[in-house]
Amino acid sequence: MEGPAEPTTDRLEAFSDGVFAVAATLLVLNLAVSPHMARGDLGPALARQWPNYATYFVSFMTIGIVWLNHHAQFRHIATADRTLMVINLLLLMIVTLTPFPTTLLANHFNSGADEHVAAVLYASTLFAMGVAFFGSYLWCARRHLFEGWIDERHVSYLIRRNMLGLFIYAAAIGVAFVNAPTSLGLCGLVAIYYLLPARAPAASARV
Amino acid sequence: MEGPAEPTTDRLEAFSDGVFAVAATLLVLNLAVSPHMARGDLGPALARQWPNYATYFVSFMTIGIVWLNHHAQFRHIATADRTLMVINLLLLMIVTLTPFPTTLLANHFNSGADEHVAAVLYASTLFAMGVAFFGSYLWCARRHLFEGWIDERHVSYLIRRNMLGLFIYAAAIGVAFVNAPTSLGLCGLVAIYYLLPARAPAASARV
Amino acid sequence: MEGPAEPTTDRLEAFSDGVFAVAATLLVLNLAVSPHMARGDLGPALARQWPNYATYFVSFMTIGIVWLNHHAQFRHIATADRTLMVINLLLLMIVTLTPFPTTLLANHFNSGADEHVAAVLYASTLFAMGVAFFGSYLWCARRHLFEGWIDERHVSYLIRRNMLGLFIYAAAIGVAFVNAPTSLGLCGLVAIYYLLPARAPAASARV
Amino acid sequence: MEGPAEPTTDRLEAFSDGVFAVAATLLVLNLAVSPHMARGDLGPALARQWPNYATYFVSFMTIGIVWLNHHAQFRHIATADRTLMVINLLLLMIVTLTPFPTTLLANHFNSGADEHVAAVLYASTLFAMGVAFFGSYLWCARRHLFEGWIDERHVSYLIRRNMLGLFIYAAAIGVAFVNAPTSLGLCGLVAIYYLLPARAPAASARV
Repeated sequence: MEGPAEPTTDRLEAFSDGVFAVAATLLVLNLAVSPHMARGDLGPALARQWPNYATYFVSFMTIGIVWLNHHAQFRHIATADRTLMVINLLLLMIVTLTPFPTTLLANHFNSGADEHVAAVLYASTLFAMGVAFFGSYLWCARRHLFEGWIDERHVSYLIRRNMLGLFIYAAAIGVAFVNAPTSLGLCGLVAIYYLLPARAPAASARV
Repeated sequence: MEGPAEPTTDRLEAFSDGVFAVAATLLVLNLAVSPHMARGDLGPALARQWPNYATYFVSFMTIGIVWLNHHAQFRHIATADRTLMVINLLLLMIVTLTPFPTTLLANHFNSGADEHVAAVLYASTLFAMGVAFFGSYLWCARRHLFEGWIDERHVSYLIRRNMLGLFIYAAAIGVAFVNAPTSLGLCGLVAIYYLLPARAPAASARV
Repeated sequence: MEGPAEPTTDRLEAFSDGVFAVAATLLVLNLAVSPHMARGDLGPALARQWPNYATYFVSFMTIGIVWLNHHAQFRHIATADRTLMVINLLLLMIVTLTPFPTTLLANHFNSGADEHVAAVLYASTLFAMGVAFFGSYLWCARRHLFEGWIDERHVSYLIRRNMLGLFIYAAAIGVAFVNAPTSLGLCGLVAIYYLLPARAPAASARV
Repeated sequence: MEGPAEPTTDRLEAFSDGVFAVAATLLVLNLAVSPHMARGDLGPALARQWPNYATYFVSFMTIGIVWLNHHAQFRHIATADRTLMVINLLLLMIVTLTPFPTTLLANHFNSGADEHVAAVLYASTLFAMGVAFFGSYLWCARRHLFEGWIDERHVSYLIRRNMLGLFIYAAAIGVAFVNAPTSLGLCGLVAIYYLLPARAPAASARV
């Protein structure tokens, strides 16, 4: 066997893509309208479940963003060690968990105390996803798993960028104890923030 | 890091394939016959849910067609920029949403006012899917993301072809307010239209 | 654009693999034991749903076999034309439908008339899957989509092999009107038959 | 056709990745909190379903580990024969079954006799998964499907490692008749054991 410690990342990416795709697609099960409702009530029933659409949007976009960044990260990794694979497995576990707090938050909007429990759980899940992603990034930087030369300034820029996202998620957890919609809004803000292209430092662009 | 703005499209395609495949397969959950029915009633119960089969067929074929065209489009794209990835993410979000209006339309056929609400939502979803797909196509054409030389006549032919599909979807939205089955029929017509091979202009065929 | 009519089969295979994998995995939703049962009744409840295990096994193995043969077929195809893609889409639609008749047959075993309705639908679905697969095979043979030289004797051997499977499925449809378990058994027989390696004709083995 | 008996493993891996990813992601359906509960009871309701989280974690990690090892195994396989494909299909069938005993065990924790039935089924499923994986490994070793030279000491080391995992699973089945939580703990222990990197024998590391 040729080198037990340095698998290429092809299948790690294929498996990850599958998990991201399935988790993102399962979110739709959260939108089902109960078939037991009065006739002629479909319009209002659809309007009433706006929290389901809001949480769907934030969760789908967040999974999509993490996938985009996962994609950008692994493009530069030639070989993955066992530790990176385990960190990646933990990240994927949190990604697959996402439909659960998403449904909880949608179902308990405007329900008093339960709303805060659900919002804390929701923001905490996204926070944990961010931590796992950041952890895999830091591991790659520390173990020099990125192929070729790494621009120090670019790495520190990306670390600041990740720290900001984690900080907003942490704020969203705190706000969830007081106001669930604002907490969800903060989570959505992170998704939009990451959708915007990262500023490519001049030095890095040259590489 | 080698060029932060020009990832290859390999994983974008892998993730998209996963989302298309899962969304298309989840449609089957829409076909379940309630286990609480009288004995000996299976045949009639299966016959009664013909709207479920009709919507299943149109939705599956539409997702399949969009996948086919997505496939044909990305075959010619060497590198994807961030904007294309975001447009693609929006397209995939609409694809994953599809099982929701599909189930709604199937469950509310012949239900008076609700039927029209569900049919409008259904046709609007397919229209939005078409707009997102067309948007990603236009972006690729404008930013010259297609590899090699692009035949202007072929591009304008494909634009006309896409415009026709969007026009029929728009008509289906309008018709939905009056007659839901006809609206569904128009949506199915678009799928069949796209199933037919695109006429390859002579000039393009030479390229 | 380089040749609009001859895409490689890479993504067709990726999308197909995704659909096969999701359809095969969704079958497990068919095994859920109702949570509303008397305490201490789990063992008997699990034993009572043996038809669910039997149909699960036949359906999973059939999808697995079709995947195996799909795999073997497309390995030899360099380029796919639009017609092959459409036939493949129809094949995938039937594959994604499979969990539906599987659940129906499992839920209506030993239920008198309904049992026969469900068994006819089940065997018919597998028959349609076989027809679609055979159709895509014949199309490839006719249009010379297989790369390199094709051994005529091998093709005719595979055609005979496919015909035998279709013949047994047709018999299973007929038998379903009389005896559902025997019909399911015949369907399982086809899966086992295809699991056995195809006899490689001497001439073909040399190619 | 070029050699009917020696397909490359690309698509076998793609299909397997899909099945692993979907099965792992479907586990989340096991976490749904019943929407029919008293207001303000969400916190306690979430706490009460700790068995669901525990079984989720063990099942997800086990599927993840089997995927990691499947990945490590097939990296060294150049061609797959029909028998390996059938063994792999059986392995995948057990993987897709996993959400079923996972839900059973979670729902019947602390339910007297049913708890033991569910725990035996759970540990037996993981044991069967281990046997199928080990079987495919032994088949590859026996048929010399691994590319290049195989270090005998490494193979015998991996066999001992696999035997230990199977032994613990066997113990977990026995313990399940007496104490379900301990049985689940043993299953979790195997996952953690396999998460730790395999000791690379000096001789093997040189290869």
